[in-house]
Amino acid sequence: MAEATSRRIRFAVIGVDHRHIYDMTGRLLELGHECAGYWTDGEPRTLAGFVKRHPHIPRVADKRRLIEDPTVALILTAAIPCDRAAIAIEAMRAGKDVGTDKPGCTTLAQLAQLRRVVAETGRIWSVNYSERFEVAAATRALELVRAGAIGRVVQTTDLGPHRINRLLRDAWYFRHDAVGGILADIGCHRVDSFMTFTGSTDAEILHAAVGNFANPDDTDYADYGEMVLSSPQARGFVRLDYYTPDGQASWGDGRFFILGTDGYMELRQELDIAGREGSDHLFVVDNKSTRYIDCHDAGLPYYPALVADVLDRTETAMAQSHCFKVMEIAMQAEAKATRLGFLAR
Amino acid sequence: MAEATSRRIRFAVIGVDHRHIYDMTGRLLELGHECAGYWTDGEPRTLAGFVKRHPHIPRVADKRRLIEDPTVALILTAAIPCDRAAIAIEAMRAGKDVGTDKPGCTTLAQLAQLRRVVAETGRIWSVNYSERFEVAAATRALELVRAGAIGRVVQTTDLGPHRINRLLRDAWYFRHDAVGGILADIGCHRVDSFMTFTGSTDAEILHAAVGNFANPDDTDYADYGEMVLSSPQARGFVRLDYYTPDGQASWGDGRFFILGTDGYMELRQELDIAGREGSDHLFVVDNKSTRYIDCHDAGLPYYPALVADVLDRTETAMAQSHCFKVMEIAMQAEAKATRLGFLAR
Repeated sequence: MAEATSRRIRFAVIGVDHRHIYDMTGRLLELGHECAGYWTDGEPRTLAGFVKRHPHIPRVADKRRLIEDPTVALILTAAIPCDRAAIAIEAMRAGKDVGTDKPGCTTLAQLAQLRRVVAETGRIWSVNYSERFEVAAATRALELVRAGAIGRVVQTTDLGPHRINRLLRDAWYFRHDAVGGILADIGCHRVDSFMTFTGSTDAEILHAAVGNFANPDDTDYADYGEMVLSSPQARGFVRLDYYTPDGQASWGDGRFFILGTDGYMELRQELDIAGREGSDHLFVVDNKSTRYIDCHDAGLPYYPALVADVLDRTETAMAQSHCFKVMEIAMQAEAKATRLGFLAR
Repeated sequence: MAEATSRRIRFAVIGVDHRHIYDMTGRLLELGHECAGYWTDGEPRTLAGFVKRHPHIPRVADKRRLIEDPTVALILTAAIPCDRAAIAIEAMRAGKDVGTDKPGCTTLAQLAQLRRVVAETGRIWSVNYSERFEVAAATRALELVRAGAIGRVVQTTDLGPHRINRLLRDAWYFRHDAVGGILADIGCHRVDSFMTFTGSTDAEILHAAVGNFANPDDTDYADYGEMVLSSPQARGFVRLDYYTPDGQASWGDGRFFILGTDGYMELRQELDIAGREGSDHLFVVDNKSTRYIDCHDAGLPYYPALVADVLDRTETAMAQSHCFKVMEIAMQAEAKATRLGFLAR
């Protein structure tokens, strides 16, 4: 294990099947932590990008070399989603903490097993809800909400458009059993945001639907999803899609509206269409003024906090119970969703 | 009756209890039509503003003088919402067409009677869904959607914040029986937009809720509402509130997002927070580009079309069936809504 005195850890990567692994790895390297190596199954389309960004990280042929390495404290995984739970469980049973790409698992049975293994081993299982952890505007907005800037939060509306990027995706991406479905996969981000910004520790899915309206040949793939959430604290609406057109500069014009009794906020996470340059746009309207807030110094506290948790056995990056609950709710939404369009055939 | 050859009509106003009557009257006057007079019950807070804008319009003591005036073709009403149906029915039975502020009625029983009277008399009953009829950006957006600019419309998300403006409101405004509820009152605008922009002739309410989270002393008043709509064509989400803070320049930062399979649009109807000056902001993103569209020349076709319909006995301003169906759906949503916050006590 890494020595707590140095505050540096060694980590390893198991599965690079989603591009999120580029930044998950990169953030830890930027913080000065060391990657012992990576393993991945076969030659996913994402592999070249990983090697290009991180050419110094050695590939190993047997993932047990990494999982059993006594100098490795943390395993990162962005394997095919349905395989992530088994990798996490193997790693935790070998004494490692785990940082996993979202969705952290794809079935409620996997989640139940993950909860048991965390309870048995005392290890950390942390899902990278990157729509919050990788967005500086979310860091700043959360500080403001928690300081009471807009009064009581009554509702959040979360629009999550994505580009389908078919040529960058491996075949598994279009299989429901591999991904867990649109509400579980990209929906878990939004469940995390709803619960975090409204201060909710649980939520009920009042309504959920998934559909395929633009990809009739992919009969197992949802290109659209929606859900309505409710907690004792607030209400939430989430809309997800894969229709981002080619005339748009980012992978998706994500918006997050936070409605309070004394004001509201809007996050334009990726871009400000026909407006300002760059990302991380935050607008705040309260009883005093309407203002644009620069968030570039807001920071991304997740990764440093995760490493501190690994070293100190704390839960500062995210409560373990929240991490589980978000995946549980997202998968419940997926399970109860009405199937629309080509999915209903 | 006005002579069709001149294309001018005479109209009258019965009830000025909502500020919408200022513009309803003003638009017809701007088009060169003549107002025979107005009647209103008592001294509503809105009266001074009406007289200030339209000082030449005579007040009459008995509304029957206007309803029975053979030179008057059209009655406008912005009476207290629960009284509008009776005024409309009296006017139609006297041979007049009716242009009513929204909501056009407050109960399903009133609506059934309105449908019968329209069928019996052949008169026009037109509800002023002003979030579309008074918004030039909506005119232009609808042209583009109908021309196929963003492919198949899959979903609309409609955020309708309002300032409570307590000092401008009469007491009836806070009584459910007078207004019909938030989903019926300001929700009918959004049902109209959903159906119009998605090309739907009917819709189902999948989910609805109303709440009071900021006005605990007004135990009959909802300051929050939400609904999920579904039609064979598309899905819709609507969120309404009365939390617009004082630091915001308009009565409400309305947003309308239209999601298509080949692109999307955003309307910022009233203002562009911390952005461009003025109103009627339309953003279009398609497979070619992301662009801001100036809508100031788009026009507001509703009032000229309504007058043409009065003269020609046509339905160009709005199909009568659509006008009824919108109110029906909005009132159904109100009836089935879960009651939250202080309303749930």
